[in-house]
Amino acid sequence: MELKNLVAQIRKKHSFLCVGLDTDLEKIPSHLKSAIDPLFEFNKAIVDATADYCVAYKPNIAFYEAYGVSGWQSLEKTIAYINANYPNHFTIADAKRGDIGNTAERYAEAFYNKLQFDSVTLSPYMGTDAIAPFLKQEGKYPIVLALTSNKGAEDFQYIGEGSSTLFEQVVKLTQSYFNSERVMYVVGATKADRLKQIRDLAPKAFFLVPGVGAQGGDLKAVYDNGSNEEVGLLVNSSRGIIYASSGEDFAEAAANSAKKLQLQMKSLLAS
Amino acid sequence: MELKNLVAQIRKKHSFLCVGLDTDLEKIPSHLKSAIDPLFEFNKAIVDATADYCVAYKPNIAFYEAYGVSGWQSLEKTIAYINANYPNHFTIADAKRGDIGNTAERYAEAFYNKLQFDSVTLSPYMGTDAIAPFLKQEGKYPIVLALTSNKGAEDFQYIGEGSSTLFEQVVKLTQSYFNSERVMYVVGATKADRLKQIRDLAPKAFFLVPGVGAQGGDLKAVYDNGSNEEVGLLVNSSRGIIYASSGEDFAEAAANSAKKLQLQMKSLLAS
Repeated sequence: MELKNLVAQIRKKHSFLCVGLDTDLEKIPSHLKSAIDPLFEFNKAIVDATADYCVAYKPNIAFYEAYGVSGWQSLEKTIAYINANYPNHFTIADAKRGDIGNTAERYAEAFYNKLQFDSVTLSPYMGTDAIAPFLKQEGKYPIVLALTSNKGAEDFQYIGEGSSTLFEQVVKLTQSYFNSERVMYVVGATKADRLKQIRDLAPKAFFLVPGVGAQGGDLKAVYDNGSNEEVGLLVNSSRGIIYASSGEDFAEAAANSAKKLQLQMKSLLAS
Repeated sequence: MELKNLVAQIRKKHSFLCVGLDTDLEKIPSHLKSAIDPLFEFNKAIVDATADYCVAYKPNIAFYEAYGVSGWQSLEKTIAYINANYPNHFTIADAKRGDIGNTAERYAEAFYNKLQFDSVTLSPYMGTDAIAPFLKQEGKYPIVLALTSNKGAEDFQYIGEGSSTLFEQVVKLTQSYFNSERVMYVVGATKADRLKQIRDLAPKAFFLVPGVGAQGGDLKAVYDNGSNEEVGLLVNSSRGIIYASSGEDFAEAAANSAKKLQLQMKSLLAS
């Protein structure tokens, strides 16, 4: 997908919501568990219910790999369904991959070409060779971990504080790459001041922001500190949407949760 | 597998060789390409030919994911074949995963339980939550990236030089974990002085060492700087073994390459 199309969708739908498909057999409604492919049936219902309120979908690859071949089949069907029925939605393989050049090429093949995702999340620990192969294709976007929202983010990502932290150096170096206009970043929602700092380092980049629940306060802080003139944000919610209800009304409940976030986003975009 | 069993295998076979299964359809001998599952048939032949000379196998997960569901099937068959026929070989899922707690749990489920690998390589960028879930099971081992052998290793892994670098802090923190005796590390073969530095920080840990080709010199430097009283090393070779010949004699050529490295290891172990 071209970036200008993503921006156009955000403007048209008044939404920068990404729905995370962290689909877990143990958490889906019991009436779906007898389906031939429960993960896919769940995802299909969630996607159909939420498509009007979001601009992106993000399957979390671990949740599919945990079921082996059958999980990978559910993943293939899910991304094929989204691409066939909602071609204007941006798709993210949340895979956190990161390996040397020839291996990175194979992961790019897996997620960009075999599965046809628009983007894939990457861990930068191994440096440039782990990222550059994901920048070769037009219309495909590596989303590099910068500052994450989990507790363990504090273990290593702030190393170098005082001069230049690890997460700052990751952003600075990747911004210097050929085709760097296609690099996106994972930036956690929990530290608004840091969001602003990373926005200053990468004024035009899209940020994928996890860590916003149904809390409007956080969302406003993310928007105020992280947005740019083309919005530049995809805010993800997973469990708060897809597990809004564990009953037969799960899809309707997911739609309501997604709509609630979308309305908050509409208000922010109009402000 | 228990660590003492791995050490016993190393002593018995006079080998600390790990064979990397980076199996690529485009590189396997043409006579195998018409098989129903060429990746598995290739791996099976390589494993049968090299099992006497090595103590570990390391499929590189990217090479299977690139083929989608069929690649994942080949991976499942490969690990099942190794576990059924060579239960004393240590198995490594070279996956470089690294994500927050609930996602890390799903990756642990995928590689430890669904596929039944003994270990999985991990990227530490996201910190403790990305690693701790892989330490919960007895007989299962997270192999954490410390200092890698690729060019990009220099981009971020040395941040903090002068006080404590990123890779040192990764080793120090993970050595402080509960069950830290099960943490292993990826340490590249290309920097012998650094190997010694990491050995000092983690005297008892096993190191998985990529970057040694058929070059005996490197191997000696790795052994001299990286070994401990229980050897503590698994030296990996992938392409130098599995693609030693592209003809019908590929398995015999792989055995010869593996044996050549094993003989060098035997001589080092006796020194």
